[in-house]
Amino acid sequence: MRIYDIITKKKQGIELTKEEIDYTISAYMSAEVADYQMSALLMAICLKGMGDTEAYHLTRAMLESGDTVDLSRFSTLSVDKHSTGGVGDKTTLIVAPIVATLGCKMAKMSGRGLGFTGGTVDKLEAITGYKATLDSNAFLEQVEAIGISVVGQSANLAPADKKLYALRDVTATIDSIPLIASSIMSKKLASGAHNIVLDVKCGSGAFMKTRESAAELARAMIKIGTGFKRNVRALVTNMDVPLGIAVGNRTEVWEAIQVLSGRGDLRLTELCIELASNIASLALNLDTGSAKARVLDAISTGKALCKMKEWIACQGGDISYIESPKKLLMAKHQKPYIAKADGYIEKILADSVGTASMMLGAGRVKLNDKIDYNAGIIFNKSYGDFVKKGECIATLYSDNDAFKNCIDILDNAIVISKTEPPKQELIFEIL
Amino acid sequence: MRIYDIITKKKQGIELTKEEIDYTISAYMSAEVADYQMSALLMAICLKGMGDTEAYHLTRAMLESGDTVDLSRFSTLSVDKHSTGGVGDKTTLIVAPIVATLGCKMAKMSGRGLGFTGGTVDKLEAITGYKATLDSNAFLEQVEAIGISVVGQSANLAPADKKLYALRDVTATIDSIPLIASSIMSKKLASGAHNIVLDVKCGSGAFMKTRESAAELARAMIKIGTGFKRNVRALVTNMDVPLGIAVGNRTEVWEAIQVLSGRGDLRLTELCIELASNIASLALNLDTGSAKARVLDAISTGKALCKMKEWIACQGGDISYIESPKKLLMAKHQKPYIAKADGYIEKILADSVGTASMMLGAGRVKLNDKIDYNAGIIFNKSYGDFVKKGECIATLYSDNDAFKNCIDILDNAIVISKTEPPKQELIFEIL
Repeated sequence: MRIYDIITKKKQGIELTKEEIDYTISAYMSAEVADYQMSALLMAICLKGMGDTEAYHLTRAMLESGDTVDLSRFSTLSVDKHSTGGVGDKTTLIVAPIVATLGCKMAKMSGRGLGFTGGTVDKLEAITGYKATLDSNAFLEQVEAIGISVVGQSANLAPADKKLYALRDVTATIDSIPLIASSIMSKKLASGAHNIVLDVKCGSGAFMKTRESAAELARAMIKIGTGFKRNVRALVTNMDVPLGIAVGNRTEVWEAIQVLSGRGDLRLTELCIELASNIASLALNLDTGSAKARVLDAISTGKALCKMKEWIACQGGDISYIESPKKLLMAKHQKPYIAKADGYIEKILADSVGTASMMLGAGRVKLNDKIDYNAGIIFNKSYGDFVKKGECIATLYSDNDAFKNCIDILDNAIVISKTEPPKQELIFEIL
Repeated sequence: MRIYDIITKKKQGIELTKEEIDYTISAYMSAEVADYQMSALLMAICLKGMGDTEAYHLTRAMLESGDTVDLSRFSTLSVDKHSTGGVGDKTTLIVAPIVATLGCKMAKMSGRGLGFTGGTVDKLEAITGYKATLDSNAFLEQVEAIGISVVGQSANLAPADKKLYALRDVTATIDSIPLIASSIMSKKLASGAHNIVLDVKCGSGAFMKTRESAAELARAMIKIGTGFKRNVRALVTNMDVPLGIAVGNRTEVWEAIQVLSGRGDLRLTELCIELASNIASLALNLDTGSAKARVLDAISTGKALCKMKEWIACQGGDISYIESPKKLLMAKHQKPYIAKADGYIEKILADSVGTASMMLGAGRVKLNDKIDYNAGIIFNKSYGDFVKKGECIATLYSDNDAFKNCIDILDNAIVISKTEPPKQELIFEIL
């Protein structure tokens, strides 16, 4: 088998066989296939596409390139969720304890953030003492005992995906639905959960800009997951504005506690309930109506918040942050962001808000940058709200008194208009 | 400027600007742009194409990446020809002395062969003593004095093309008309001739398999050349069967002498007359009718053969080979290739004949392989001829008695049939 012939075939738009895909991935991992050959093939895939069977085999080949987590001891109760990434997305912090309360087994490997999308692990590590590295036994035993553990992703899950993604990132070959779908699914499947709920974002703050392309990606991932006999469901959700009111690390943990206390932002709360209900319905084999009733009960009785405390304590985190959430908003410097005119908030560009928060110190520009856990933004006003000139739209938090860049970006990210903007849907579709 | 954005743009099928193309080529040459980025861009070009203006600027950027030959001292008399490559193509050996006889200035840089297509320089070096390396002054002075010099290509003509071609060769990104056209034209334009005649081959022995794609390539090259204010003409010619009766090195020099002596194969002679007439018509500003009359005269009076002798002598070659062409057919071993049945020759697959000749030692498999100058094939019978079982179709020449592989290949390359095959056109189109 020669990579030259495989590239030629894909360039002509012909489906690759299982054997060709296996050869490509293993020869790429052994460096028999060079980066410059793989990038030519990736571009051909971007422009000519891949069929369902090809995407399945690509996912399988990447999955088989590394370790897999065996969650069979949890039978069909193991669950996972994945978000394609958005600004202010702290849903894992909320959904994980809810579904654990209901008896699901959330054994979750999560990422650190690069750029403005942040990572769940960063948010958890913002809680002093939280250990995101557990050995495999300790990880599984904690899930067994309390139904939940969230750790940083092991280096050897789907290493072929890691190598390919790094190449795609510098060769403008990211935006291919079969490539994105198999990248995400190879890691999710390697993580071992039987039930997977995907939150596929669309809008200005997401990679998928339109509802249609997000739905297409969702369908591609469901097809792959189903091929591996997993239960997969996907929500296509709005990321035109940031999710919830907080962006940052401690600020987002603070907001997660608000939601679990029944005091959270309504849209964020709605999405978390929907995600949790879908996970519970898959894992516990319930109709979504009864699943949702149990989810609401877990929040209103305070059981989910208790579960969060148990989880954080189990992984060494300081639970005084959860008992007194105000401790999470102790940045040395705080500054109000003020409305410049009367009017309705017509736009809060999610990606710019992410960048603004990164400028405060809440995100990494480069892989080894240090995060200021206290940095972040909390909005007092949301999309569609009426504000008066001089009113506080948001509070900026930072340990360094460097607000100027952030404010400049927000000046462009937040648009105030004389007319009330239309309502925005939150959940477009459940697939 | 970022290569990422340039790749993205081309992936979306948008035309690149002059500045973007200049940046791409210069950053690739300085290794700021990596091979894996360039190959992704090349694949996007293969699949999305390039407009005329883009192809012009790509050619210019590659041309400007290295040295150029200044032929301005010859005013508008400088000429060049280029063949896209074929089996048995010895036209330069014939056409160059003809047009030099008529007053054209043929200052030609030619290539060494790799694979079965052979190189003009290899054929010339098969004449003992011939020096294919001249310094720039000697080269130009010889052209000034006798109207002709053919040397090996200087390493520094269009080095960007060289680097790009090597990458295309291993990433399945060869077959793009704008990329092929700009690759050929960057070298031709760097070589400096004012008048360029292109012989674009099509058929089984050529890179372009169809007449339509060959014509498209011809038009693309003419557009580029015209953009640089050169006179360019192109012939689209048949390469379904080998050109002429000889394949090899000394064997092909022998055939060139036959043609210049008025005893050559009719199809080969016709093509050489057509090429020479077109070159002379461009350079001397003649209608093709009068140009052709002068060409025929140069052959029939023996002036062109004399010019060949003068040229070879000037570059140190042993002219006894030209005076006694039989000296060119002195391989230690000769073997007839015999017809296995009565019938008409329906196919002589050009590419397979090239491979068969390479097996005898006439070509290089790897870059540093040594050529057996005596190795080659001379056909007694041509496409459409009737042969009787046991009759000699061709004679194989080799200094090593290793005919078996060659014969096996010829057994598949030559097809004998009961019915007479249709006549094949030689010159499809002149553009």
